[in-house]
Amino acid sequence: MHAFRTHTCADLTRDDVGETVRLSGWVHRVRDHGGVLFIDLRDHYGITQVLCDPDSPVFAEVEKVRSEWCVRIDGVVKARAAELVNPKIPTGEIEVYIRDIEVLGASKELPLIVFGDQEYPEETRLRYRYLDLRREAMQKNMTLRSDVVAAMRRRMWDKGFREYQTPIITASSPEGARDFLVPSRLHPGKFYALPQAPQQFKQLLMVSGFDKYFQIAPCFRDEDPRADRSPTDFYQLDMEMSFVEQQDVFDTIQPVMTGVFEEFGGGRKVDEVWPQISYKDSALWYGTDKPDLRNPIKMEVVSEHFAGSGFAIFAKLLEQDGTEIRAIPAPGGGSRKFCDRMNAFAQKEGLPGMGYIFWRDGENGVEAAGPLAKNIGPERTEAIRTQLGLGKGDAAFFLGGKPSSFERVAGLARNVIGEELNLTDKERFAFAWIVDFPMYERDEETGAVDFSHNPFSMPQGGRGALDGDPLEVLGYQYDLACNGYELISGAIRNHKPEIMFKAFELAGYGEDEVRKRFGGMVNAFQYGAPPHGGCAVGIDRVVMLLADETNIREVILFPMNQRAEDLMMDAPSEPTNEQLRELRLRVLPPEE
Amino acid sequence: MHAFRTHTCADLTRDDVGETVRLSGWVHRVRDHGGVLFIDLRDHYGITQVLCDPDSPVFAEVEKVRSEWCVRIDGVVKARAAELVNPKIPTGEIEVYIRDIEVLGASKELPLIVFGDQEYPEETRLRYRYLDLRREAMQKNMTLRSDVVAAMRRRMWDKGFREYQTPIITASSPEGARDFLVPSRLHPGKFYALPQAPQQFKQLLMVSGFDKYFQIAPCFRDEDPRADRSPTDFYQLDMEMSFVEQQDVFDTIQPVMTGVFEEFGGGRKVDEVWPQISYKDSALWYGTDKPDLRNPIKMEVVSEHFAGSGFAIFAKLLEQDGTEIRAIPAPGGGSRKFCDRMNAFAQKEGLPGMGYIFWRDGENGVEAAGPLAKNIGPERTEAIRTQLGLGKGDAAFFLGGKPSSFERVAGLARNVIGEELNLTDKERFAFAWIVDFPMYERDEETGAVDFSHNPFSMPQGGRGALDGDPLEVLGYQYDLACNGYELISGAIRNHKPEIMFKAFELAGYGEDEVRKRFGGMVNAFQYGAPPHGGCAVGIDRVVMLLADETNIREVILFPMNQRAEDLMMDAPSEPTNEQLRELRLRVLPPEE
Repeated sequence: MHAFRTHTCADLTRDDVGETVRLSGWVHRVRDHGGVLFIDLRDHYGITQVLCDPDSPVFAEVEKVRSEWCVRIDGVVKARAAELVNPKIPTGEIEVYIRDIEVLGASKELPLIVFGDQEYPEETRLRYRYLDLRREAMQKNMTLRSDVVAAMRRRMWDKGFREYQTPIITASSPEGARDFLVPSRLHPGKFYALPQAPQQFKQLLMVSGFDKYFQIAPCFRDEDPRADRSPTDFYQLDMEMSFVEQQDVFDTIQPVMTGVFEEFGGGRKVDEVWPQISYKDSALWYGTDKPDLRNPIKMEVVSEHFAGSGFAIFAKLLEQDGTEIRAIPAPGGGSRKFCDRMNAFAQKEGLPGMGYIFWRDGENGVEAAGPLAKNIGPERTEAIRTQLGLGKGDAAFFLGGKPSSFERVAGLARNVIGEELNLTDKERFAFAWIVDFPMYERDEETGAVDFSHNPFSMPQGGRGALDGDPLEVLGYQYDLACNGYELISGAIRNHKPEIMFKAFELAGYGEDEVRKRFGGMVNAFQYGAPPHGGCAVGIDRVVMLLADETNIREVILFPMNQRAEDLMMDAPSEPTNEQLRELRLRVLPPEE
Repeated sequence: MHAFRTHTCADLTRDDVGETVRLSGWVHRVRDHGGVLFIDLRDHYGITQVLCDPDSPVFAEVEKVRSEWCVRIDGVVKARAAELVNPKIPTGEIEVYIRDIEVLGASKELPLIVFGDQEYPEETRLRYRYLDLRREAMQKNMTLRSDVVAAMRRRMWDKGFREYQTPIITASSPEGARDFLVPSRLHPGKFYALPQAPQQFKQLLMVSGFDKYFQIAPCFRDEDPRADRSPTDFYQLDMEMSFVEQQDVFDTIQPVMTGVFEEFGGGRKVDEVWPQISYKDSALWYGTDKPDLRNPIKMEVVSEHFAGSGFAIFAKLLEQDGTEIRAIPAPGGGSRKFCDRMNAFAQKEGLPGMGYIFWRDGENGVEAAGPLAKNIGPERTEAIRTQLGLGKGDAAFFLGGKPSSFERVAGLARNVIGEELNLTDKERFAFAWIVDFPMYERDEETGAVDFSHNPFSMPQGGRGALDGDPLEVLGYQYDLACNGYELISGAIRNHKPEIMFKAFELAGYGEDEVRKRFGGMVNAFQYGAPPHGGCAVGIDRVVMLLADETNIREVILFPMNQRAEDLMMDAPSEPTNEQLRELRLRVLPPEE
């Protein structure tokens, strides 16, 4: 007989009745029913009820065990009486009568109960993560994550991609965030960097002729933590292809993603059609470049109805350059109470408020209500209603000014309206490609033009496009939005050195600086670079969506806390003097 | 038509004759045959011959292209004349007549020729790695590596293991090498460490109840580089299982390994029987704990034949405690010339020399020759011959003293003898588990007892074994040797806190220090830890063996050079003052 188990805790069925078996696992719960001890014995695979009556030679030992002790038991499988069968678990038809027991690992008093759903502060959960991870929900999330990653891999292989491992201790590869640095012992004073993404290496692989690359790649960014972002390392499904255009990348990754969402989405609907929405339209319609399309609300420009109207605030605003009035339609939101609540929401988010109109039963059918309706009069009100396709019981909210001043809040308000009015279909994954990102943006404070996203993207129109106004240049650059999250980001790359130098020049970087910062890649492009492009999928976020979690730490085995600390492992910690000496480093005292 | 290609450069066959096609790839070679330009167009998948005669509308453009330019061509597929068919490549029956060409990426003069086998200094190859990787042998090695890793994954999944990702920015996990440190910006003066292996985390996963874990895991060790070791990061197939004994781990990983070696070994024989050899026997028989069992030579103790013999050096040696005489049999090595060469080899390796006897035709049949034979006389010589099972034409070499003084050289001599006498079967992968490693060793200089390998291993005999002489304690610890390399290392872990504390105490570590250094794991073991064990497979070495390479940099995409530098990417490099300020670090000047 095996030293620890003949079966797992999910294996035994009525077919095994009469057998002598050996099981190992954790004491999930112990109950004493009239002197008979019932133990739910748990392992990774399931739970088996084992029991011990006072006749057992080891009754005294079994009496000692407590929750979460790890034990090995030998016993005989017996059928449960019909009324005691538990149809919810595979082993529910049997129980095992304990004849021998061995304590494999006892447990101190538990800081965290494994069974049930009791909530604990995150610090407790992370400090005792090995107990937290024994809980059913965490076992499920982590196996889901493992299965999702495996499915992504399989689907990429099926599409003719190979996985290649790129360096982790390497050079700085500026991607917009801070690098983590690694001091070199062999070259004191010099530092390696951990890659923010394998961007340069995957492009070098294309120059090396590998044609189709992917990697489940660890990425490292020294960023301040937040709920949907790990403070240190996170994983991407990183991919790159040669000899492709934007649509080829879409056609490659879409079936991978829909496949994974269908496989693990628990029956939620997975949109088959992924609209392509320009960055500009997305901002207008949804107030964000990662719209939640489960929410049907689409904002519209309604400036014409307010120009010269009796609503002086908007009428005056519209006399300034670059201003607009936009409407958020709210089907079913036609009550003063709801409208006031949304107005208060906008104020909480820092705006003076949101004007609104709502439509109700009136003497002559549908009637517009609210102060704004009175100010602009029935004709304009009706024109707005018609444009927005609204009717009785609906409302519309209005925001005005330069779009940059209200767009973010408009997007948030759209989310809240969708939620509160139950317009957002929770049983669905809605995807959209956001395309045509501008290559450049103007820093509002300094007035300087800089890259708005990835500097390595190919400008639409190629070299010629860079001779006009930089702010008009669009890139072959794209994001995938799903349910309000950005899941993918990618681009067709700029593989031509002369276009790349020009693109950087527009953002104020001279050729020398480009060579210094991206020398590996720029040099490589001078030796027959192929056109190429790709994208990266945020794995943690995909798993969050599939697991229906809103905190990224629920889908990571051993995450840092919000201060980027691992209290279980005591990281970060003080180095030894010997370590600092070898690296020739001194830690400076805090500045005053 | 697709913007870049209708087919890859490996696709076209006689079936496509007459079609207009589009191909993209690199100009492998250009030949001018009587005014017609023949280009071998290469992509990741293969080579297609394309050609251009002066009638082509783009002849002038085609004339300009040079080796390694990346181009797109349109053309018509034609069958080659029978005598021009190239049966070596899948596209050998056709060629494509160029009608249009577009230069996608031109190339400067090449520092490294891609076609052919010309050798270049490693620095050149690494600096222009993107060109080096275009070479056929490198494409083959890297795709082999990718395929091997995928096969390992598939086989682990098939055995019921899931892959889990453990943290990379974490706490120091002393494994015997130096840690790479990562300074924390949010906690200046504190440092994270990169894991030397996911050892603690995989054990924590077992405590968390995950039962079967594996990971293709990046590992980081700040070690001085050598041919079979990467100076910074390398990959392991890391695995761990709960509720197992040593043999269970062997039974799990052996079919994974044999499967991979059979799949990718190019027909070389893969041993099905893996002997288990104790560390002690391996040292005696092979002079190393990573023996090459393709070599049939097995060393033996022959002290009795020299004790009190006329060979005064050995006879005197044997009067000291702890000394032995060992023989290396050398079947077929029976010539003075060979024996003298081996003697010189031993001297080059720092020994005074190796005594030898060889056997040749004599008046009365086989006759022992050499100075040593004369010294000890025919009776002892014959007894040695009989013990070693040697005969005419064979030789034996002798080393004496404390085994630690000559064992290493004996092992090397065994390798050389096996090679030179063609005893080593090159078309074979020969595996052996090396088991029963001692838990402790005495530092020869300080006299202190310390762990000889992994401090987390379970001592054989459990707690009780730790009450005797530490140097006698064996661990449930094992390595897999293959063809002279260590491919796997592993252990059954010490999951009982009281045994762990005692084990550390014997090596001079107090409970406080153990808690400080391995707090995460030691704490976890107090909450119901299961028995568990596992191992880690060195992936780079497996691929080296399969690719028949002796330098690890031949199987890594972008390796560091031997000074742990990446000259292509300029790593490591000087940090900015801003970076140092954020980390509150100062680099000290070199000490005098």
